[in-house]
Amino acid sequence: MEKICFIGLGHMGNPMAHQLLKASYKLMVYDIVPQVMQAMIDQGAVALTADLEGVEDADVIITMLQTGQQVSDMCLRAHGLFAKAKKNALYIDCSSIDVSAARQLHQAAKAAGIVMVDAPVSGGVTGAESATLTFMVGGEEQAFLRAKSLLEKMGSKIVHAGAAGLGQAAKICNNLILGISMIAVSEGFSLADKLGLDPKKFFDIASNASSQCWSMSKYCPFPGIIDNAPSNHNYEAGFMAKMMLKDLLLGLNAAEIAHASIPLGSAATELYSMFVNQGHAEMDFSGIIKMIGNYPYT
Amino acid sequence: MEKICFIGLGHMGNPMAHQLLKASYKLMVYDIVPQVMQAMIDQGAVALTADLEGVEDADVIITMLQTGQQVSDMCLRAHGLFAKAKKNALYIDCSSIDVSAARQLHQAAKAAGIVMVDAPVSGGVTGAESATLTFMVGGEEQAFLRAKSLLEKMGSKIVHAGAAGLGQAAKICNNLILGISMIAVSEGFSLADKLGLDPKKFFDIASNASSQCWSMSKYCPFPGIIDNAPSNHNYEAGFMAKMMLKDLLLGLNAAEIAHASIPLGSAATELYSMFVNQGHAEMDFSGIIKMIGNYPYT
Repeated sequence: MEKICFIGLGHMGNPMAHQLLKASYKLMVYDIVPQVMQAMIDQGAVALTADLEGVEDADVIITMLQTGQQVSDMCLRAHGLFAKAKKNALYIDCSSIDVSAARQLHQAAKAAGIVMVDAPVSGGVTGAESATLTFMVGGEEQAFLRAKSLLEKMGSKIVHAGAAGLGQAAKICNNLILGISMIAVSEGFSLADKLGLDPKKFFDIASNASSQCWSMSKYCPFPGIIDNAPSNHNYEAGFMAKMMLKDLLLGLNAAEIAHASIPLGSAATELYSMFVNQGHAEMDFSGIIKMIGNYPYT
Repeated sequence: MEKICFIGLGHMGNPMAHQLLKASYKLMVYDIVPQVMQAMIDQGAVALTADLEGVEDADVIITMLQTGQQVSDMCLRAHGLFAKAKKNALYIDCSSIDVSAARQLHQAAKAAGIVMVDAPVSGGVTGAESATLTFMVGGEEQAFLRAKSLLEKMGSKIVHAGAAGLGQAAKICNNLILGISMIAVSEGFSLADKLGLDPKKFFDIASNASSQCWSMSKYCPFPGIIDNAPSNHNYEAGFMAKMMLKDLLLGLNAAEIAHASIPLGSAATELYSMFVNQGHAEMDFSGIIKMIGNYPYT
């Protein structure tokens, strides 16, 4: 059985690492929060020290961190992951980071004799807990195939998006459309509401018409329509507004390096930024309907 | 069999009126273009004069015009429709107009003893030709039920949206979300493309993920993905960009009267305005991907 090193045991990394423990992998773990690491050790994992002693034994290294900077530091610093990892080890970065950082990491991994895939996820904490995440994977076919069986322990859909960095690209482009859609649905429903059109009636019409979208049909931001949507549970995340803002900012960064224009993506970023700055960083991202529609927060 | 007066035989009105002729209704017609009217007379309709002589015999009057101003002129002018129509006649306005004009017409109709519904459509020329339009109807329940059997000759889905003006509201809110979504999908696909992510691959991922929407799944603006979408037929409308611009402007008007904010709707209006001003008024509205993605027009 392969030895796996898992770095970053946050909201997502923790339940993901648990799935690997459940699948009986030998797991080494690291997180900057000692308590989080201890809980994992109590269940059979082995702790790594801050200077990553032991990583040289790992067949597979997985990171689940917050920013491209954190991932680059972890991988590229002196005595970091890429310096310590054994030749031909598989490195899977599950963090959502910018395409350019991901591509730099792929290059550095190659130079160090390490096989890398970028494999950001969608599905949130619920998906991680139920091992039903979607992984969007970028890297060479061989690397994808090597990663696939392991990722299947944590997710139910493992898609090869293309070459290095294109896992990140797929997630960023998806969430760009998602962020805009959620605001669009918020505008449509609050306008309908204020015009006196019953939002349930509008839902019946629109969800069977040309404005149908996932943000409406599965995650409607207007309360009282989709039972299990965060809008019916006080907008508890779900997917936090600050995470949507992060992904939209990654979209702007990607647009810049690709010489692409995303005018509505840019406007959506500003609106999520305003929403986060007004104190709603941890609210579900569908809560933006409160700002758009000027609805009371309590 | 009821006597019907049909005013406005344009791209939509013409095939709609034909469905009524096919259903053997006695039809009086009027259009400012004599040739259009003549073609309908050749098939058994009776011509109205410009001063609407004969309207007093109609049990049902239908208008399919371009703007709220045109509809108001036709109905409210001296010796206009509302002055001439018989008491308890049913008036169905199928035009897409602003909510405030629609509400004023409802009031004036009531004062004149005429029963009115606003009943804008979606489904385009194809829907009109195949009698598969969707009608979104605003007005009293009784009026809706009276209109329904007739509308079923021209459409396959007849929905009662609510009180006076709410048919217009439903259509406007739907097309607000649609216009924004189409640009969102255009941004996502052109960004994916420019990042080197195969648009077909991105479609496979996104159409099964949280960015799924009608604009993507049924009408993808990127060519080579949905066979019968206008993107695969030179962006021939379909639904013209200038009509989307008109509906977005109706959305801005509705937001103003309802004290609602539609920041992305407003940005989408500006983008469609730019696209139309650049000479693409009659191109399908999904053609906006060419402007967003800086793709060549020929």
